[in-house]
Amino acid sequence: MLANKKRVQAHLEALAQFTATPGKGITRLSYSAEDLQARTYLKSTMQAIGLDVHEDAIGNIYGRLAGQDPTLPAVLIGSHFDSVPHGGAFDGTAGVVMGLEVATLFHEQQLTPYYPLEVVALVEEEGSSFGHGLLASRAIAGQISADDLKQMQDDQGRSAAQKMAQAGFNAEQVSSVMRSPKEMKAFIELHIEQGPILEQAGQDIGIVDTIVGLCQLEITVQGRAGHAGTTPMHLRADALLAATYLIQAINQLAAQETEAVATVGKLAVYPNGSNVIPSKVIFTVDVRAKYADKLQWLLQQIQADCAAANSSTIKVHYHQKVSIAPVNLNPMISALLKANSDKLGFKSRMMVSGAGHDAMVLADLTAVGLVFVPSRQGLSHHPDEWTDYAQICQGIEVIFETVKTLTEEK
Amino acid sequence: MLANKKRVQAHLEALAQFTATPGKGITRLSYSAEDLQARTYLKSTMQAIGLDVHEDAIGNIYGRLAGQDPTLPAVLIGSHFDSVPHGGAFDGTAGVVMGLEVATLFHEQQLTPYYPLEVVALVEEEGSSFGHGLLASRAIAGQISADDLKQMQDDQGRSAAQKMAQAGFNAEQVSSVMRSPKEMKAFIELHIEQGPILEQAGQDIGIVDTIVGLCQLEITVQGRAGHAGTTPMHLRADALLAATYLIQAINQLAAQETEAVATVGKLAVYPNGSNVIPSKVIFTVDVRAKYADKLQWLLQQIQADCAAANSSTIKVHYHQKVSIAPVNLNPMISALLKANSDKLGFKSRMMVSGAGHDAMVLADLTAVGLVFVPSRQGLSHHPDEWTDYAQICQGIEVIFETVKTLTEEK
Repeated sequence: MLANKKRVQAHLEALAQFTATPGKGITRLSYSAEDLQARTYLKSTMQAIGLDVHEDAIGNIYGRLAGQDPTLPAVLIGSHFDSVPHGGAFDGTAGVVMGLEVATLFHEQQLTPYYPLEVVALVEEEGSSFGHGLLASRAIAGQISADDLKQMQDDQGRSAAQKMAQAGFNAEQVSSVMRSPKEMKAFIELHIEQGPILEQAGQDIGIVDTIVGLCQLEITVQGRAGHAGTTPMHLRADALLAATYLIQAINQLAAQETEAVATVGKLAVYPNGSNVIPSKVIFTVDVRAKYADKLQWLLQQIQADCAAANSSTIKVHYHQKVSIAPVNLNPMISALLKANSDKLGFKSRMMVSGAGHDAMVLADLTAVGLVFVPSRQGLSHHPDEWTDYAQICQGIEVIFETVKTLTEEK
Repeated sequence: MLANKKRVQAHLEALAQFTATPGKGITRLSYSAEDLQARTYLKSTMQAIGLDVHEDAIGNIYGRLAGQDPTLPAVLIGSHFDSVPHGGAFDGTAGVVMGLEVATLFHEQQLTPYYPLEVVALVEEEGSSFGHGLLASRAIAGQISADDLKQMQDDQGRSAAQKMAQAGFNAEQVSSVMRSPKEMKAFIELHIEQGPILEQAGQDIGIVDTIVGLCQLEITVQGRAGHAGTTPMHLRADALLAATYLIQAINQLAAQETEAVATVGKLAVYPNGSNVIPSKVIFTVDVRAKYADKLQWLLQQIQADCAAANSSTIKVHYHQKVSIAPVNLNPMISALLKANSDKLGFKSRMMVSGAGHDAMVLADLTAVGLVFVPSRQGLSHHPDEWTDYAQICQGIEVIFETVKTLTEEK
């Protein structure tokens, strides 16, 4: 094996110590004390393998290996190093460690790339601090202003700008975080799958060709409250009972489709008393699909189901809160990743990412590839999240081979 | 008309002013400032119509009209004068005003009953303060100890005993609140229906022959959490989806029955995130039926449905929290009420009470009758709760005629 499993393990175990909730999973919010500990570790590791380290105005870390031609755009590799509260040690971090290990292999093998290579460790992908995910990549894409950072607040009412200032960064200069497409040749991210597909199929490597489109709906079912003891069944307008039929219809719609999912994850009953007929139910629907037309079709069906559920006593309100189109990643990079995986003898598949990633945002700026490694039992955002170190090394090797090609070809 | 509609209206409007939430319904918790205002009004009204007023150790108010033979048991009439938060002006209060008006008619007509007549105004029927409903009647039945009153707490952590002491009562002496069956000949309560049956049928008077049996269940559906974007539909164990089938089955079971209802009123989803497949759902089931065997049959069916919903990935736990048997009220008093209603030319029906009442507890001690008057749109526990004053007067007249008979017959 090319990648050093002990080194990869050591990095992941070291970074796992930087958590606000020891013994209860990884809690590493951007700009926290644990962020600063991880940051110090990452910077010193980058320096030790000869990278030129730079932190931008909002705290993204870049470790750059100069190319033979310094005027050429860089190949970027990495992921994010923040976590959700009580998350796992692999989500994001595994991709940052991939970057460290690929650069270490370059260092060990004394490879001098023609194009520059940059290891990137991004902040605030999860949105756990301020409710705004993909913050780093959106800032790199120029989608975040200093005003935005002043308005975003954490649970204690502190703004993102304040938190950044406390950690030594400067929200006022967020525009300097932007990277021009001209500076970037490619971005390759490694991430744990966060789902069960690779494990169930007994495969090593997932090469993501598409990040799904996503719509979030909020559906309100309005019925009529009544006393649970004194209102005959046939005179009721039970909002919860009406909602159950919609929830089933939504699940059945998605179950008939491949490459689409729909989830009712959050639901509130009003007034929520054991002896009161529910007057109102509000629930979310999270709909994702690989193809934009399929996503639209699913939304139309759900909207039609909601409309059909209206009656003289039940009123259903359909509201679309979030809509993000599917993102296609770069087919040539995907093909290169696949070819290298085959060459290394790993079992791989092309697949869809059902979750959003910084890769999705950066795909607007440069050629992007995304490699998945298996998640045990599909777990993620959970203390028990796990990927074997050997599996992470396989992903690293696929990317190492691909990066060698990308930094050499002219 | 015998009953004085203006007087009844004046009492109800006066008592409606004693609310902690003016303009937002009646909030009159036992032992609150509003309770003390209502208490002062009730006692002075009782004194003005020649009743001998007594408050017991937990604050129930009795206004007694001596009978010709003071050794005979009393005929009690009345209801409770507490409310739920943001409730209506009729629930409980209408029955207390019935007591005042019947006694006023005795006073006006200078009737001296052979048996004593007692107007009763009871505390804490709703259980809004300490989570223990029917407190007064249970204390009268000897089911409440001083220790119980020290342990019951309101939302601010103050015990029932403390609240009673602040209002001038004495929880230590709760045993003195007990009334012996020998002291009581009968208890007749008037209450608003809290349901739509009388209004829908165009009837004036409901004579309750049975107060339904009640079971409260808590059902837990355990599935498996997962990422809403990355978990294929066929690999999910969605606890909410599984719960929807049970909720429908429970509603369908009750809908097939007459004189039975079942309600899923309270439901919580875990972890309740819009992008997480629900791992757990806990919901309540409130089942009520006129006949004990029907109630048991419904519970068995629900338990069987829960058992059948178990699979390799979904586990359902059925837990019975509360079980109260149906209570039959006194057939002779019911017949007398019906006969007097007919004599007065009112449209009446025998009916079941789907809600619990103090009458239910007192039925263990004495002969009990319960009269319902219509609720507009079936509303109760709501600021818009309403019964026309003329309809309340019809109920009062039926009870007045019945009380005359009961206090005269030997």
